[in-house]
Amino acid sequence: MIRYITAGESHGQSLTAIIEGLPAGLSIDEEYINRHLARRQVGYGRGERMNIEKDKVQITSGVRWGETIASPVALIVNNKDWENWGSTMSVDSSGKNPDEHLLKPRPGHADLPGILKYDREDVRDILERASARETAARVAAGAFALRLLEEFDIKVFSYSVKIGNAGLENLEVTSKDIDLIEASALRCPSPEVEKIMIEEIDTVQKNKDTLGGIFTVRVEGLPPGLGSHVQWDRKLDARIAAAILSIQAIKGVEFGIGFKSATLPGSKVHDEISYEKQEKKYYRKTNNAGGIEGGMTNGEPLIITAAMKPISSLMKPLKSVNTITKEPVASEKVRSDVCALPAAGVVGEAAVALELASALMEKTGGDSIREMKRNYKAYLDQVRNF
Amino acid sequence: MIRYITAGESHGQSLTAIIEGLPAGLSIDEEYINRHLARRQVGYGRGERMNIEKDKVQITSGVRWGETIASPVALIVNNKDWENWGSTMSVDSSGKNPDEHLLKPRPGHADLPGILKYDREDVRDILERASARETAARVAAGAFALRLLEEFDIKVFSYSVKIGNAGLENLEVTSKDIDLIEASALRCPSPEVEKIMIEEIDTVQKNKDTLGGIFTVRVEGLPPGLGSHVQWDRKLDARIAAAILSIQAIKGVEFGIGFKSATLPGSKVHDEISYEKQEKKYYRKTNNAGGIEGGMTNGEPLIITAAMKPISSLMKPLKSVNTITKEPVASEKVRSDVCALPAAGVVGEAAVALELASALMEKTGGDSIREMKRNYKAYLDQVRNF
Amino acid sequence: MIRYITAGESHGQSLTAIIEGLPAGLSIDEEYINRHLARRQVGYGRGERMNIEKDKVQITSGVRWGETIASPVALIVNNKDWENWGSTMSVDSSGKNPDEHLLKPRPGHADLPGILKYDREDVRDILERASARETAARVAAGAFALRLLEEFDIKVFSYSVKIGNAGLENLEVTSKDIDLIEASALRCPSPEVEKIMIEEIDTVQKNKDTLGGIFTVRVEGLPPGLGSHVQWDRKLDARIAAAILSIQAIKGVEFGIGFKSATLPGSKVHDEISYEKQEKKYYRKTNNAGGIEGGMTNGEPLIITAAMKPISSLMKPLKSVNTITKEPVASEKVRSDVCALPAAGVVGEAAVALELASALMEKTGGDSIREMKRNYKAYLDQVRNF
Amino acid sequence: MIRYITAGESHGQSLTAIIEGLPAGLSIDEEYINRHLARRQVGYGRGERMNIEKDKVQITSGVRWGETIASPVALIVNNKDWENWGSTMSVDSSGKNPDEHLLKPRPGHADLPGILKYDREDVRDILERASARETAARVAAGAFALRLLEEFDIKVFSYSVKIGNAGLENLEVTSKDIDLIEASALRCPSPEVEKIMIEEIDTVQKNKDTLGGIFTVRVEGLPPGLGSHVQWDRKLDARIAAAILSIQAIKGVEFGIGFKSATLPGSKVHDEISYEKQEKKYYRKTNNAGGIEGGMTNGEPLIITAAMKPISSLMKPLKSVNTITKEPVASEKVRSDVCALPAAGVVGEAAVALELASALMEKTGGDSIREMKRNYKAYLDQVRNF
Repeated sequence: MIRYITAGESHGQSLTAIIEGLPAGLSIDEEYINRHLARRQVGYGRGERMNIEKDKVQITSGVRWGETIASPVALIVNNKDWENWGSTMSVDSSGKNPDEHLLKPRPGHADLPGILKYDREDVRDILERASARETAARVAAGAFALRLLEEFDIKVFSYSVKIGNAGLENLEVTSKDIDLIEASALRCPSPEVEKIMIEEIDTVQKNKDTLGGIFTVRVEGLPPGLGSHVQWDRKLDARIAAAILSIQAIKGVEFGIGFKSATLPGSKVHDEISYEKQEKKYYRKTNNAGGIEGGMTNGEPLIITAAMKPISSLMKPLKSVNTITKEPVASEKVRSDVCALPAAGVVGEAAVALELASALMEKTGGDSIREMKRNYKAYLDQVRNF
Repeated sequence: MIRYITAGESHGQSLTAIIEGLPAGLSIDEEYINRHLARRQVGYGRGERMNIEKDKVQITSGVRWGETIASPVALIVNNKDWENWGSTMSVDSSGKNPDEHLLKPRPGHADLPGILKYDREDVRDILERASARETAARVAAGAFALRLLEEFDIKVFSYSVKIGNAGLENLEVTSKDIDLIEASALRCPSPEVEKIMIEEIDTVQKNKDTLGGIFTVRVEGLPPGLGSHVQWDRKLDARIAAAILSIQAIKGVEFGIGFKSATLPGSKVHDEISYEKQEKKYYRKTNNAGGIEGGMTNGEPLIITAAMKPISSLMKPLKSVNTITKEPVASEKVRSDVCALPAAGVVGEAAVALELASALMEKTGGDSIREMKRNYKAYLDQVRNF
Repeated sequence: MIRYITAGESHGQSLTAIIEGLPAGLSIDEEYINRHLARRQVGYGRGERMNIEKDKVQITSGVRWGETIASPVALIVNNKDWENWGSTMSVDSSGKNPDEHLLKPRPGHADLPGILKYDREDVRDILERASARETAARVAAGAFALRLLEEFDIKVFSYSVKIGNAGLENLEVTSKDIDLIEASALRCPSPEVEKIMIEEIDTVQKNKDTLGGIFTVRVEGLPPGLGSHVQWDRKLDARIAAAILSIQAIKGVEFGIGFKSATLPGSKVHDEISYEKQEKKYYRKTNNAGGIEGGMTNGEPLIITAAMKPISSLMKPLKSVNTITKEPVASEKVRSDVCALPAAGVVGEAAVALELASALMEKTGGDSIREMKRNYKAYLDQVRNF
Repeated sequence: MIRYITAGESHGQSLTAIIEGLPAGLSIDEEYINRHLARRQVGYGRGERMNIEKDKVQITSGVRWGETIASPVALIVNNKDWENWGSTMSVDSSGKNPDEHLLKPRPGHADLPGILKYDREDVRDILERASARETAARVAAGAFALRLLEEFDIKVFSYSVKIGNAGLENLEVTSKDIDLIEASALRCPSPEVEKIMIEEIDTVQKNKDTLGGIFTVRVEGLPPGLGSHVQWDRKLDARIAAAILSIQAIKGVEFGIGFKSATLPGSKVHDEISYEKQEKKYYRKTNNAGGIEGGMTNGEPLIITAAMKPISSLMKPLKSVNTITKEPVASEKVRSDVCALPAAGVVGEAAVALELASALMEKTGGDSIREMKRNYKAYLDQVRNF
């Protein structure tokens, strides 16, 4: 079982993640993680901050001589801007200044429920942690899961499906399109659609408004049998749904054709079962299920699609209430992006990869990569000779 | 923290649930639970089994003299049909008969990934547990959560939004519509729409096909501040998403306007903050967020919408493969409903209620209903006087 | 990961356990479990109840045709005496009778802290669940773990070390002594010592007093490497310590020479490492560590010793306070044993077996016995060829 | 619920801990934590390293302006000696040097089971994480729990009971002795006994041997009702036992008179219940139970005693085997203390405090210190007026 936990405020000194339960012997280096952190930072319509922060990870434990040694991995991503926030975010009481309190909670954010729940006068005490800045820590942790899955030839990738009214229509995107996706500022495999997406962003930016969008995470190379049908909280789709919904600003998730399957008859939805005798392999001609049946992977590509709401911090602030006077005010203005969909896709990869790596370890057991591979190979043989 | 776990095969002796972590002093009786079990069994388009089974619960522990006593609650729902399955489902090896093995996995079910994962020759070893029959146990457990929430004037209810092409369009449904919903065979608050839904079901049934649909769970009376923004797995929407996706046949979930929010600009999505001075209460004129911001309830109604795929067992079986000969065959025919959407809504209520009850107990602490209410009242005062 | 949870009151209708996460394909039947339930009921110095209750388990799910099928196992042990308790323990309010309230909490029991915590007027609401009767459910669940470990030639057994002043002194007890232990009413491998133990019990019984004692659980046939050093809550000794301390009346636990190791110099304590070239096997000439180093099994027998306090219900009641009048009174008299040490040992086996089975599954992964054995064999080869 | 997790190797760059689930509004600063880190470093018989490392914590998140803000707290304790280990412990492969491999596993350590389990050639890959150096991170995390408990006037402290043959005999130590304990190099409240302890250490050191010992953690000011009797893994003694056994080198734990209670009759063990009418308070004249009955605190001081084995690294190395040649060798020599008992006591305080703080939060709920105190006060009133 892999566990991970993150810490860190948006303008604090640094983000920290601990990921543990990893097998020993997994090759990895900071550069690999940094590449994923950089992927999180691409995007058209990203704000000023993306220029300030070129995120770099420091591994401070759990990796030695270029390999995991089974002990917990601690990851630190410093906030480069921290020096400018020393007093506002001081750990000790030296910086304390009630005059600085933010009192105008922003709609769409954790601000208002957060201060009520935790009984905080200063909205900053909530927004600093609720910020999507936290996802940098998750991407760093997720890089270990991605690295692990690579060893088993399991490919996890994401792409943008829709921004505003611009969207891919029924385009099947596969791992062959990865280069196209990675080359696109919006992580969109279709240059034509990307162009319209950019126009959507430009329009919205002019209006001092924001956008969200829809992205897909797709995983190829999975064996059948990850996850389980036996108990509600062991179902892989349930676990992945939680991981996806835990990403800031995500408001919906679906597997395969998802909501569309709710309107079609069963004969148009369920993926009939075929068998390829040469390869000794069950397969499906369609994949409406998105690779998951009964809470288990079925050997087809896993397809997860998520809806991201527009960024909640607008340059043209929404209406709010001053928490002291209770009078109507414009909400706090906090520096932000116009559209962060491509980043969300990369975070989605991390979230999915962490659940898959955990499910894979439950399948193979094994405390080292060598042991995992040995057991995995034997399982693939079992499936082949079933 | 509330925990619950279920056991039981579809044609085994009985379903069992244990729910524990409940406060002491909660009034409840079997009749209350049976009413919820009966609500799970309504529906137009339900198969023969619904007539066989009038589910009745037995509470065998945790409740004394009509009240919880803090100890774990064990719940048993017998399968009335069990006597006819004694040999096929015998616990001891007396019934063992390899000739009875089911060898034609059904598309859309756990069948194929299940037998590969668990190395079982007989598809029945998988389908018995993967069956949605399990949800009776969850509804029984969920009844305790619903009962608990009632004590805090929190109302959880569900309704059918779409079946086939028939759907409610932008209709706001509130707790005032509960009677309408409960009176409807399809749990649809609009008699006009229900009529079209029935026609959709009739058509599909004629075609020996099946349908899924879309349902909404709505919760009124929630305080702000359940759930948390501080860690990915503490977010209430993440936890609810997992609970919903763990329901058999659910392929998607969204909060508030969900996927729609992915296509609108921020100014059209985020719910501006207002304040009512008389009641000393923050509120929103819109509720696109569906009552949740930053992983926390914000005091507005919680709105969760889920997509159910069509039932996977068709009377006109789909193509499959014989697991021994590897030749193409029609998949197993297993008695089933045509459309089970209304039941899914009731299960959804249970799943959501269990997460909310757990989150409420985290908020109030408290080992007795009296203590919970005392702490809850003090928290509401805190919020009011914030 | 194996999970188990129990429910049930001492005089309620039945005890229930759910154990889940088991691999498919494990052969087991009710008779096997009943044998373990019977072992829990032996003993010299057991009260009247042991005669009333000949515990029998019913498996109501998770086992089919004599084998686990991976789905959760539900186990029911009826309380035979239940008919006499129908009104006192009625689930509905029909039996409610405040005149029956027990108001004199017994020292040494959960009674007083329980009613204060859960705000209950009737001590019975606490004592029914806190009773060691619950351990019958744990033994039933533990039987699955014992059965699983047998498949891997791992032997778990327990014996009584000390009752009153009578004790085994430095006797090494091994699996060769199992027949002697099982033949003894007090589960003591030495007939001489058993005789003195019986005298101790007789004396105490005459005095209307009670006794506890010390027992050991020993496990032979374990591989090295179960558990882990990497995180505090992954250490096998920590997990076993929790399982042992969770048994009613246990007040201490130690591994190997335990407390004695605290007074000796390191050179007398640590087990030097040797190697047997024929068998290609590391071994130790001593086993002061009790088979565990750094939170992991080291391949030597696992030795866990636990201290049980005397039974808290004395026939000569201790002083208490009436919870209404607050006046001094004699505490409630509840039917009880004089000494239940042999039962505690059997419960200890179950508790340890459940942790070991879980740790073994983490090591091998595997969803079926066949897969577990395949992976286990490969691991043993790895260790041998290290 | 409080969670904590640590990371870090003994000679790596730093130790890291994340502790989360803390309420908002708890005052704390680095100096407070450093004092506890310093307390972990006192002791007579500590090795050279204690002089190298003056541990200082950095809080990098979760605390702002001197108060917790509910978000996860990340704590970093740098290893000052790190610069000398840059190549041996390099994260990237630059330092890789198979010639440096340690091949002689030390008896009593995780070394041998660790390399077998994780399939590592270099013993260092195991010992770096298994080292008790890790406990510095736990003490840092525990300081938050201690700080939290202080707000509720709950005092946690530890003292050394026995080193070698020198021990306190039946001395009741209370919080009045804290100054004596803190003034003692061996954390022993009796200067006479401490003197003999020092002699024991001197003798052992001359023999190039090591010692362990026995320590007690005592907690005063607890309310009744923390923990629960309802489920095996909710019992507070079970949870504390796991926390204590998870401390490096601990081989046993007992509550109250523990193992001694196993040999006495019930009438001499159970603490009779009295009532003080003025204060409206149940109390006990004895405390053999060590403040815990039925898995719950009973309002008396909590008394936990633990056995620490001698340090496993001797200056006169024990016998081992070269893992490549399989020939007998002297085990690796790693710099170490002679006796680390006082440190273990301080770690024990942290481990116990973390479990108690978590149990307290389950009792009170509450997301802020203000809310916790409000609910706690109401609970104390409930208990008083029971």
